[in-house]
Amino acid sequence: MLTALAGGVGAAKLLVGLAEVVDPTEITAVINTGDDLVLHGLTICPDIDSVTYALAGLDNKETGWGVTGETWTVAENLRALGGISWFQLGDRDLATHLYRTQRLGEGATLTDVTTELAVARGVRTRLLPMSEDPVRTRVTLARPAEGASAEVAFQDYFVRLSHDVEVASLRFDGAEGSSPAPGVLEAIEQADLIVCCPSNPIVSIGPILSIPGIASALEARREAVVAVSPIIAGSALRGPADRLLAELGHESSALGVGRLYAPWVGTFLVDEADEALAPKIEALGMRCLVVPTVMSDAATRAALAKAVVSAC
Amino acid sequence: MLTALAGGVGAAKLLVGLAEVVDPTEITAVINTGDDLVLHGLTICPDIDSVTYALAGLDNKETGWGVTGETWTVAENLRALGGISWFQLGDRDLATHLYRTQRLGEGATLTDVTTELAVARGVRTRLLPMSEDPVRTRVTLARPAEGASAEVAFQDYFVRLSHDVEVASLRFDGAEGSSPAPGVLEAIEQADLIVCCPSNPIVSIGPILSIPGIASALEARREAVVAVSPIIAGSALRGPADRLLAELGHESSALGVGRLYAPWVGTFLVDEADEALAPKIEALGMRCLVVPTVMSDAATRAALAKAVVSAC
Repeated sequence: MLTALAGGVGAAKLLVGLAEVVDPTEITAVINTGDDLVLHGLTICPDIDSVTYALAGLDNKETGWGVTGETWTVAENLRALGGISWFQLGDRDLATHLYRTQRLGEGATLTDVTTELAVARGVRTRLLPMSEDPVRTRVTLARPAEGASAEVAFQDYFVRLSHDVEVASLRFDGAEGSSPAPGVLEAIEQADLIVCCPSNPIVSIGPILSIPGIASALEARREAVVAVSPIIAGSALRGPADRLLAELGHESSALGVGRLYAPWVGTFLVDEADEALAPKIEALGMRCLVVPTVMSDAATRAALAKAVVSAC
Repeated sequence: MLTALAGGVGAAKLLVGLAEVVDPTEITAVINTGDDLVLHGLTICPDIDSVTYALAGLDNKETGWGVTGETWTVAENLRALGGISWFQLGDRDLATHLYRTQRLGEGATLTDVTTELAVARGVRTRLLPMSEDPVRTRVTLARPAEGASAEVAFQDYFVRLSHDVEVASLRFDGAEGSSPAPGVLEAIEQADLIVCCPSNPIVSIGPILSIPGIASALEARREAVVAVSPIIAGSALRGPADRLLAELGHESSALGVGRLYAPWVGTFLVDEADEALAPKIEALGMRCLVVPTVMSDAATRAALAKAVVSAC
């Protein structure tokens, strides 16, 4: 039994690798929903979808996001109508959001719908939202546009503003009073191995830890938790993790992530580029393993997955 | 100033004709919203959309409904996911519903959104929903499926069951307590001519009349109201108007429609096939004009529009 904490694209890659080296039905992914949004009336769960598409082999390898073979007829027509176009929704992707929104409207839980969509696409890994309660990452911009609100929804920051703005702070709206989705705490408690994927520590793993009960459950399993650093030589491979770490007062390095993760991660995998940081990370009380962590192809992905599985 | 009461496809044809013989900016169409539904989280207004597409020249002349040049990528993917597929939503059409749902969610009124969508498509005729309140046609089936509810939503009857079932009764849920949309009563009060399009009297015109204030406003303008019979030689050209009239105890004929419309229609246009009914219709206290009413091409459509405009 393996339980993984997952954001979107970065986590999805490692999960694909893990599902190649472990029986996928023995894997549970607990997925961030802090990025979720309602747009055009549709409930959109970007991280759940990224993980589902990747595990189904439907992820678009060219763009690095969205669905392979995507078309854009709806989006083109919506743009012609003057509709919101900064959050791109492809036709194939839209079917996911229509299905989810209809089922949620019928009273299905997000856990149910996530399972239904995964099963419909042949995904055998068990996918769980971190919570069925709406917990939303809200970002306070250091320099908001004149007259605009300083606090914006996550996708406003991430997509509309291309995360190319300075962040003053952020919070996980709704976390207080929320609960882990059914099965999440059990998946952490009963796993032989818990994997923290190389996702953004602040806005992908952070929301998961904000759900009451999850951080303490992880602390209780610390010796079984293996994390992969999302920061290599001070930089994130994609997304704003490096910048966010620095802006929020952390060190933008594997060591900085290690400091955040030390309370609940027993073993930390850092890239060979960060070998020099290993002693400082070990000094935090974590085991530190130095391995190649860049998943540039199927072989490196599988090798990292094997390293993770054999890490403790 | 011309004000038209409109359902969907049948009304749309006459409106296109009217906009050719009258300055389209002088025309206001008051459109049935009793058929509206929320599906996949999207607010869908089939009659407003049929009228808009037709006036924009975007109506699909081959199928008789939907948008020309339509594609079905979302629908095909949704079907593959096991989603609801009986209500077909094309990709181009979906852009309309996404736009509308987003704007309504932002607090725009249905009147605002209807105008925005019409203007975006170059429609110069003024389009008004009959009401901004949700008024929904609910159909009670004479022989519901074993264990199923006898009362269904309109589109369940119309599309899912292909209106191929016997109807016991129907009602306009929400009509009591609803109001005409802003501008509707004024459009009736101030029009030089009021046209009741050849729409289904029961489920297209009926909901409009169910909004408090509209029927009495029409009665006060009876001499200025011209209706075109949707029944020709006992049959509807499309849809279940003939069957519904009979099932609900009316005569399925232009005379049967005339009896329903007599309180508020001063002049009734019936098809040449129904010339023999003219004396009985006149006996209801209406002027009856006998003209070709089948709009099979642009010429017959324009001829009917001219006959309507010169009717009183």
